[in-house]
Amino acid sequence: MSNDRLSLVFSALADPTRRAILKRLASGSASVTELAAPFAMSLPAVSKHLKVLERAGLIARGRSAQWRPCRLEAAPLGEAACWLDAYRRLWEERLDRLDEYLAQSQQKEQHGADRE
Amino acid sequence: MSNDRLSLVFSALADPTRRAILKRLASGSASVTELAAPFAMSLPAVSKHLKVLERAGLIARGRSAQWRPCRLEAAPLGEAACWLDAYRRLWEERLDRLDEYLAQSQQKEQHGADRE
Repeated sequence: MSNDRLSLVFSALADPTRRAILKRLASGSASVTELAAPFAMSLPAVSKHLKVLERAGLIARGRSAQWRPCRLEAAPLGEAACWLDAYRRLWEERLDRLDEYLAQSQQKEQHGADRE
Repeated sequence: MSNDRLSLVFSALADPTRRAILKRLASGSASVTELAAPFAMSLPAVSKHLKVLERAGLIARGRSAQWRPCRLEAAPLGEAACWLDAYRRLWEERLDRLDEYLAQSQQKEQHGADRE
């Protein structure tokens, strides 16, 4: 696994639990216990996920030793989105072609129905 | 590593060689030999990367047994971008705050310079 920043970000996002943690943090900071609550998962298992997110720069943790709240750091998500944006034209073209195809199919069907 | 579609896509993107392969394919189909050329990498190593990309639905390969050209399938990139878009507001707010901070800093500097 590569260690460059963008690879770390994509790798951190490649897990549904980690994506769920980010989603929860988008609505505000939370402690590890609060983050663990919705998952059938031990605190050490959640901590492991948090370490991956922290290493990718996607979360930051408070300094207080007892209660280290996690907060979302959105900038690396912006960098990942920026990389994907370079391909936007390609998938939008594909969708345009699909729209065109569907419109033509409907027209043909309509034409067929008119002649019946 | 999770096997859901979005996780497979993010995981496939978590490698600079695989991202470089996608970039090359964005400008047109290519054979494995063509794809391997810019990398100091054996054909089997490139084939392994291609399998990861194929499993994530990011590339498709031709049926011909002898020359199986790879082509980019952009739709899963669109799905990944769609997931990231939910967080766009968060990183844009952050950039707005940074702009504001820089504007205020410049104003203060200007004010300081005027008084000198």
